[in-house]
Amino acid sequence: MKLLEDKILACGKVLPGEVLKVDSFLNHQIDPVLIMELGKAFYEHFSLYSISKILTVESSGIALALAAAQYFRVPVVFGKKGKHKNVGDNVYTCECFSYTKGQTYEVAVSKDYLTADDTVLIIDDFLANGAAAECLLNIIDQAGAKLAGIGIAIEKGFQPGGERLRARGIDVQSLAIIESMTDDSVTFRSAD
Amino acid sequence: MKLLEDKILACGKVLPGEVLKVDSFLNHQIDPVLIMELGKAFYEHFSLYSISKILTVESSGIALALAAAQYFRVPVVFGKKGKHKNVGDNVYTCECFSYTKGQTYEVAVSKDYLTADDTVLIIDDFLANGAAAECLLNIIDQAGAKLAGIGIAIEKGFQPGGERLRARGIDVQSLAIIESMTDDSVTFRSAD
Repeated sequence: MKLLEDKILACGKVLPGEVLKVDSFLNHQIDPVLIMELGKAFYEHFSLYSISKILTVESSGIALALAAAQYFRVPVVFGKKGKHKNVGDNVYTCECFSYTKGQTYEVAVSKDYLTADDTVLIIDDFLANGAAAECLLNIIDQAGAKLAGIGIAIEKGFQPGGERLRARGIDVQSLAIIESMTDDSVTFRSAD
Repeated sequence: MKLLEDKILACGKVLPGEVLKVDSFLNHQIDPVLIMELGKAFYEHFSLYSISKILTVESSGIALALAAAQYFRVPVVFGKKGKHKNVGDNVYTCECFSYTKGQTYEVAVSKDYLTADDTVLIIDDFLANGAAAECLLNIIDQAGAKLAGIGIAIEKGFQPGGERLRARGIDVQSLAIIESMTDDSVTFRSAD
């Protein structure tokens, strides 16, 4: 998606450790006009599935998931990290390793909001090693729900998450796929 | 706001410890149609201020802040909790005590995204003791930015946060103010 690629080129910063900092528009400061366009792009790709829920994980997936939900007009459910008093015990949980933070955290989703009747679209801001996506897939399995696909804003194509998910036949739609990046350049994978 | 009050009466649950659980539509599962109406209500109240940024804190304020930002067409900045490798050192920070979780956490906002040129609207899902709001006010002060006001979805009117903020002349707009609640009833403060 050219709009997102242009924004990454204009505002993204490459940090040591293959970190792409996009917190000026995506995950600390949020550009509401851009994010609605990303939500619309997910809708255009996944609108033929009968999606009933959009699933993401706090915090940086929430804005993107809500933007998509405006088009699908279905609820967002976001997985909560850590121990949340208010979520209660009636939850699906999954352990997830964050490569960015170098630690494992628990993601919890209330059983009230994800059931075997749901067809679920996973939305997240980044896909790299795929740990967060695997965790949400695990929760969808626990619920007995159906997966429609996975919508990602920025995929690091040089890391293995996307390839592994697609090899299992999952419809992964990444709006920008980074082929490679150095301190002063970001190269995108061409659209098919 | 009748729409929100009706939703609270239909779907909210009162838990021990004066907790109002609204995670079926506001802060775990999110109803995208309702949340946009709340965003619009904030816009209607605060549109005469020349707002340049909407400030909230992760996670449950993000959806509401984005909904408001769709109308104001200004960026959202959300404060990050805890130590965030990706935020960097160039941050304003403030300690905040969470009564719900019984612990203190640090909120950080990058200095890149909040400056003395900004006029800021604070948005959050709940106002009770006002700890999160005080923390965001502190960060706005550190930035030398101007405060437009505070938009809240649900205020617990029987707790002191709202009164304290209004006593300082701050324009606090709560879309539903709970006067009292028991296990099986929620009573709202009448609109002026």
